[in-house]
Amino acid sequence: MTTATPIEFFFDIGSTYSYLAATQIRGLEERTGRTVRWRPFLLGGVFKATGNAPPVSVAARAGWLLRDAARWAEEYGVPLTMPSRFPLVTLPTERALVVCELEAPEKLPAFALALFPAYWAEDRDPTSRDEIATLARGVGLDADRILAGMDTPAVKDHLRKSTEEAVERGAFGAPTFFVDGEMFFGNDRIAQIERLLARRARG
Amino acid sequence: MTTATPIEFFFDIGSTYSYLAATQIRGLEERTGRTVRWRPFLLGGVFKATGNAPPVSVAARAGWLLRDAARWAEEYGVPLTMPSRFPLVTLPTERALVVCELEAPEKLPAFALALFPAYWAEDRDPTSRDEIATLARGVGLDADRILAGMDTPAVKDHLRKSTEEAVERGAFGAPTFFVDGEMFFGNDRIAQIERLLARRARG
Repeated sequence: MTTATPIEFFFDIGSTYSYLAATQIRGLEERTGRTVRWRPFLLGGVFKATGNAPPVSVAARAGWLLRDAARWAEEYGVPLTMPSRFPLVTLPTERALVVCELEAPEKLPAFALALFPAYWAEDRDPTSRDEIATLARGVGLDADRILAGMDTPAVKDHLRKSTEEAVERGAFGAPTFFVDGEMFFGNDRIAQIERLLARRARG
Repeated sequence: MTTATPIEFFFDIGSTYSYLAATQIRGLEERTGRTVRWRPFLLGGVFKATGNAPPVSVAARAGWLLRDAARWAEEYGVPLTMPSRFPLVTLPTERALVVCELEAPEKLPAFALALFPAYWAEDRDPTSRDEIATLARGVGLDADRILAGMDTPAVKDHLRKSTEEAVERGAFGAPTFFVDGEMFFGNDRIAQIERLLARRARG
């Protein structure tokens, strides 16, 4: 890892392409030499602020999105099963992630990478306090502190501010990346980010 | 080129990502060993039939789309200047392409590759009969036949049927590819198509 500005990765556990992208973050770090800063935000808040709608809201698009997501999962070699609870308002989940972001940021990637497959591969409910506690414990977090923190004004405020910040910087969906001030939208732009940074590295 | 089923490429001259994709078709053919069948259709008809909306219709998304398209143009090494006439109802243009598709299909890629940059790089009006005639002549087509054919019932009907066919097969935007019965949406799926066919070729 270098001292270059981190790549920022705004994600919501309820977003299919956020999950797919999350499985590639370690590879992105390795291939670019950049660290990635994981930034939980609330996709529902982004949609509300921008007037954008979930891509699945167009019926003709929904079927293709499932197929497309399945293709990426196959390429990445990661499991993907459409959750029985979908779409899901992930407010509690994102707040739990914010507690981790504020209190134990070094564990945030592991916590997110536990929550994502719980929802996207094991059909568990990532908004359930029991599941959040179990998954938090699994990555060495203090589950009681996570649960207690979720309802505090500081955490609610931080999540709201992260979401607002992403929107102000141009986000309209998830996942959204920022690389040296430039925004990239979507799991399918990871390769483009890598090509861009490779070109810059070559000068 | 092999005898394998051609890749189908549904495109509309008025679509930014159709233009970008069109510039990559020869490379796609070379890298996959497949021929590509160029299929003009009317994106406006697709939107009407599916209830989908142009991606630029969400204001927050519009700015990013311009930036994203510019990045692809830079990567591809092709010119891109947002046309002063945008969005544009490309009905005459797509009909002119259909005349070519029906009467001189071997010239269809060249005709499309003349119309696309006229609009996307030179800010010319691809719906103007004069421009259509000039561009048709430039690729060795009989301009009078193209112009005369545009208003015939057979051509209007063919364009309507191609658009309906694409929608029935799942299309909701442009460009749309079909590869061995599978649909791929977007310029940004070309690399995925190539990886898929490479995996299949390896068995």
